[in-house]
Formats: sequence, C-alpha cells, structure tokens
Amino acid sequence: MPPLFEQLNPPRRLLLGPGPSEVSPEVLRVLATPLLGHLDPAFLGIMDEIMEGLRSLFGTRNRMTLPISGTGSAGMETAVSNLVEQGDRVVVGVAGYFGLRIAEMCRRRGAEVVKVEAPWGQPLDEDQMERAVAAGPTRAVAVVHAETSTGVLQPLERIAAAARGAGALLMADTVTSLAGLPLDVDGTGIDASWSASQKCLSAPPGASPVTFSELAMERFRARRSEAPFWYLDLALLGGYWEGTGRVYHHTAPISTFYALHEAIRLALEEGLEARWERHAAAGRALVDGASAIGLEPFVDERWRLPMLITIRVPEGVDEKQVRGRLLDEEAIEIAGGLGPLAGKVWRVGLMGHSARTGNVERLIAGLRRILKR
Amino acid sequence: MPPLFEQLNPPRRLLLGPGPSEVSPEVLRVLATPLLGHLDPAFLGIMDEIMEGLRSLFGTRNRMTLPISGTGSAGMETAVSNLVEQGDRVVVGVAGYFGLRIAEMCRRRGAEVVKVEAPWGQPLDEDQMERAVAAGPTRAVAVVHAETSTGVLQPLERIAAAARGAGALLMADTVTSLAGLPLDVDGTGIDASWSASQKCLSAPPGASPVTFSELAMERFRARRSEAPFWYLDLALLGGYWEGTGRVYHHTAPISTFYALHEAIRLALEEGLEARWERHAAAGRALVDGASAIGLEPFVDERWRLPMLITIRVPEGVDEKQVRGRLLDEEAIEIAGGLGPLAGKVWRVGLMGHSARTGNVERLIAGLRRILKR
Repeated sequence: MPPLFEQLNPPRRLLLGPGPSEVSPEVLRVLATPLLGHLDPAFLGIMDEIMEGLRSLFGTRNRMTLPISGTGSAGMETAVSNLVEQGDRVVVGVAGYFGLRIAEMCRRRGAEVVKVEAPWGQPLDEDQMERAVAAGPTRAVAVVHAETSTGVLQPLERIAAAARGAGALLMADTVTSLAGLPLDVDGTGIDASWSASQKCLSAPPGASPVTFSELAMERFRARRSEAPFWYLDLALLGGYWEGTGRVYHHTAPISTFYALHEAIRLALEEGLEARWERHAAAGRALVDGASAIGLEPFVDERWRLPMLITIRVPEGVDEKQVRGRLLDEEAIEIAGGLGPLAGKVWRVGLMGHSARTGNVERLIAGLRRILKR
Repeated sequence: MPPLFEQLNPPRRLLLGPGPSEVSPEVLRVLATPLLGHLDPAFLGIMDEIMEGLRSLFGTRNRMTLPISGTGSAGMETAVSNLVEQGDRVVVGVAGYFGLRIAEMCRRRGAEVVKVEAPWGQPLDEDQMERAVAAGPTRAVAVVHAETSTGVLQPLERIAAAARGAGALLMADTVTSLAGLPLDVDGTGIDASWSASQKCLSAPPGASPVTFSELAMERFRARRSEAPFWYLDLALLGGYWEGTGRVYHHTAPISTFYALHEAIRLALEEGLEARWERHAAAGRALVDGASAIGLEPFVDERWRLPMLITIRVPEGVDEKQVRGRLLDEEAIEIAGGLGPLAGKVWRVGLMGHSARTGNVERLIAGLRRILKR
C-alpha cells in the first residue's frame, strides 16, 4: 500500500499576518525537548515559573494567572463562561471582529448583551460606553484592548472607571497587546483578561494566557449556577495550577508550555520597555515604507496599533491576488480584511520575533515589485 | 534585576505512566519546524492529511474526523456538549475515573444521567447496560473503550447493538486505545469518539482526535437548543476543517498539529497490526517481568489492556515512596491509582514509543532494586 502521505516539509514563510508570528530559533529548539509528565515535580516547577512570568507580562499580582490549554478563543471563553451567567447584563464594546466574538460567547451564556458599536477602524466612544454601563445593573463590561481585525488600540482608563463605578467586572481581550505594548492589568483595573501565545510572545499557538483578579474570583465563587464547561472551569483549573494540591485536571500540553516558558523568558530578558519600543519602531517603519510606495494606513495615527497595521488597498487592486503573489513569489504571509473590511485593507502583523525593520523592508520590497510602484 | 528564571533544562525521564508517553525523535524534530499560518494553503493541505490519517486510525470514513485544539478532555467535552442537551437521557458506563468524567460533563449539560456502574478493575456488565438502555427513551450511550484509570478493556459490540436498537448514539472514549489496539469505529457502530495525541500515538499532548458519524451530525444539526460551547461548536469546527470554505474559526496549534501529522505518519508506516502486536508484546513482557519479582496484575487477563497495566502494590509497601524513588533514582515515571485504587495499584503505561520490551526491562530492574526483590 502506498503511504498515505510523506513527512511534512512545509514551505518557509515570513509570517507578517495577524498571528502566528515568527517563532524564534530558541523557542523552536525548546519545542524539541523530551517531555516530562504533567504531574512531574519538575514540570510543576515549570508551571510556577510560567505563572510568575505571565504576571510580569500582564502587570498583575493576580494569583489566578495561567495559560489555558487551548488557543486565544479558549481563553476568551474561559473568561466569559466563568464570569457571565444567564440573564446578566453585559456591556460589550464592538468595533471589530473580536468584539463580535465576545458578544457571541456572552449571548450563548444567556446574557443580556448590550452592544456599544463603533465603526471598524475607530475605537469605542467612551461617552457612549459610560452611558451604556450606567443604563442598567451591569454585571460585566467587555472590550478588546488591541483589535486584531482593525488595528485599533482601545484606551481603557475611562471604561475601567465606569465599570468600577458600576460594580461591574472589566474583561479585556489582550490577545494582540500582551508583550507588545504597555499593559498594566492591576493599574488599569482589569478583572479578567485573555491573550494568546502566538502574537507578540512569538510562541506557537495552543496556549492562552489568562488572568483573573480577586474580585473576579469572588464573583466566580458566588455564581448562582454551576460553571458550564468542565474543560475551562476556573475551580478545576485552579486546583491544578495553584494551591497546594496540584490536583490532576487535564493533561497539560507539555511541549507548548515549554515553548511558552522560553518565549516568556526571552521577553523578560529583552525587557518589556525595550520590547514595546521595538514593536513601535517596526510599526513606524511599516507606515513610512508603505507611504514611500504610495500606500496609506487605514487607522488614524492617534489609535493606530504598532503590531497590527491595516493598509488601505489602492483603488482597482485585487487585494487577494496581491496576497497570493506575496505568498508564492516572496514567501511572505499577510492577511486580508474581515467583515466590512474584506477587500478594503491588508492586515500586516509585526508581532514578537516578526517585529523587525528588516522584515518590514522585505515586505515593502515585495509589495513594490508586485504593485509595480 | 536578576532573571525571573533560567532557560528550561528538564531532567530526562522514561515516561511509563498513563501519558504523555515517550515522543519519538522524529516527532520531536518535526516540532521544531518553522510555522505556517493557519490559513496558508500548505497548512490546509496538512490538515487534510491529518484528517485522512485519523480516519485510518479510527477505522472510519466519517467526514467529520479531525483533531480538537485541546487535550483529550476537550475532545470528550466536544462530543458531550454538541450531542447531549438539557433533559436528554444518557446511559453512562462508569467503571473508572474517565467514565465518571463523562457522567460529570453530561450532568453539566442538564442531561438525565443514568450511571451503570461496575467495580473498578472490571468491565461493565453488558446485561445491565442493555437493561438501562431499554428502560427509557435513551438519547445516547457513553462508555470508555480503554479505561486509563483501571487498565480494563471494555468490549463494545453488545453495547453498540443495544444503542443502535434504541436509536441512541454511541459515544466511546478511545483516548488510550487509538493506535494501540484494534479499533473499528464504523464496523462497531460508534457514533462519536474522542482520543488524545499523547497516548498510543506518542505525540505531545494538546490535540484530541475526534470522529462523528453522519447520524451524530444529523442529531447535532437537529438540536433543540444551540450548541453551548463556541470553541468546540461542531458547526464552526466543520467550517474550518472541511467543506470548501475553510472559514477561520480559531488559530490552530500549528506545531502540535505538525507533531500529530508525523506521529500519524509513523503509525501508518509501522502498520496498525504490527503496532497493535508491539503493544501486546510489551504488555506481556510487563506482566511476565512483574511476576518474576513477585508482583501481580490487578486486572483479569480476559479484559486486561496491553498498554495500561495496573499492578497490585504489595502489602506493607508505600507505593508513593516507590514512585518517588523510581523517578529520582531510576528516572522512570509511572503513576499511582486514582479514586478507590489510590494506594492499591501502580499504573504502568506502555503506549506508542514507550511500548518496547527494553523499557519494560528497565522498569523491572528498577523496581527490583527499590523493592529489594
């Protein structure tokens, strides 16, 4: 019988899409480390270091800070399914695809979802958010800190104050911001946050760092109904990750957590401020380079993310064909727009190991060839 | 500031517990392959190969055969959360820890859970299962094919016939059996099954192969209520994994799926019958070796698994201390018992790459030294 398939030999790409980002050689090497068991004392020590490292990245002292054994959406669903119950009024800021996803997950939990919408490409209107929070007994407020579908940075301070004033939990998606721009969970007053390993941390996808404040954990413990999902239940996760028992819950994805450990170590070794500045510099280089070939950013400078930049597709250009040629001829991945931005923007990710001006130069050179500019 | 922690350098263990099993050097090497994006045409091709390979392993032509982006429990919850609804009568066979877990997940879905229990160390009583299925309108029957907590193989034929006769779906946990002993999902009439990458497939944990029959998918599409779990929703997963659209759902764990691809390739290259025989031979060697130092298996030969063998702890022996010394002095991991078997048995896993007589010899030699036999 002929073999069903050959050993994989994927083409080499430069990953400049919205994630996964380039994984550094150090992290790739660590992935190939032989495995420990998930209850081995040596592995429990690695888990402790991951938790402590994630606290530094999130800017928090929250005990309940750990990676979920799934991708970023699993982290989002961990926050929503543990903190939102049937009938809860939840104000969700929707200015892009991932705001919609939070709203959808809240809807599945039977929440009364109050959507505050903004045009894709702009941040939420903070006045409108304040009014929505004040308009009823609000259980939680959910926003996306760095909206990967639009490239917009959402200021959090006033929204956090509104949530606090209403006694509501603040939930923030930091999938694309963690380790790429200033984030201060405790200082800002974020009660629940989720991120992903494959963005500015530059580890492979498969782990979703999350953090929960003491207030969030109190609310969780005071739920009127049981947490619906066994796999994401904060009580069961806490039993494995923290406390003295280290009770078996599920088998942790050992190799993925090895990679996450090394990615965190590299981020802390670089220093968070230096890392933020590297992302900012890469973003500036991209905007300058794009401008030199007559392309312009979609998002206003005031709230433009450095690590995920949306570029307007010029009139008359087939954006999908350009992306296909970039992939085939230049071995560079970028992404198209989602929802209302489909066909209108390219999304360029400069996250983690990808956030280097040399990568920006390669992309601009490739676009110049393909667009003949 | 001193570094928070050093690059990881875990001690080298021989993994003879209930999983993760030893990962072969080929799979470790593949883990270090640079990543593709999750929507790259080359990655979509790898996904197709994984699906086709998993069909061979499961013994099925089910279109809906794919790996969940989580560990085995996420696969279990995929089956339960998509196929079991509020008020459904579900007959769950409970003869160990993982049967209990299925029952718990069904309970969280609001099902009427009818537990058919058997003593840990024995299979379910098939007469009793038949009677329970016949005693009411049964929506689903759930059993564990290879119970990792006890080392018992559950015969499925009569239970499958009972489920079919009652118009109920048969759900089977094949976490420990897949790629280690004969499994024929289509021939047996299993409608939903879930497994794990880190057992007899010997890939790292983090992927849970699942398969759903056409009947299961029909029942899923005819749900009275929406699927509760966004991350595990079969409709959304199907949109990404199969069909023409390949619609983005979540970011697949690329490196974990690379490893799974290679692990499947190695299993098919070895040949399933040769692989089953290798597991059987390793299991026989363990029982013989244990007997030579006066240790006896806990489970009767008639339903003893080859790849997960429970060994009775001799009278007066502190089993935990023995495991600690095995780990520290011999660098071998085995596991203790769960629930009613805590303190009474050791659990030895001989799964995938671990299922080699040389490993058995190392374990027996270590036990001989520690137990002074």
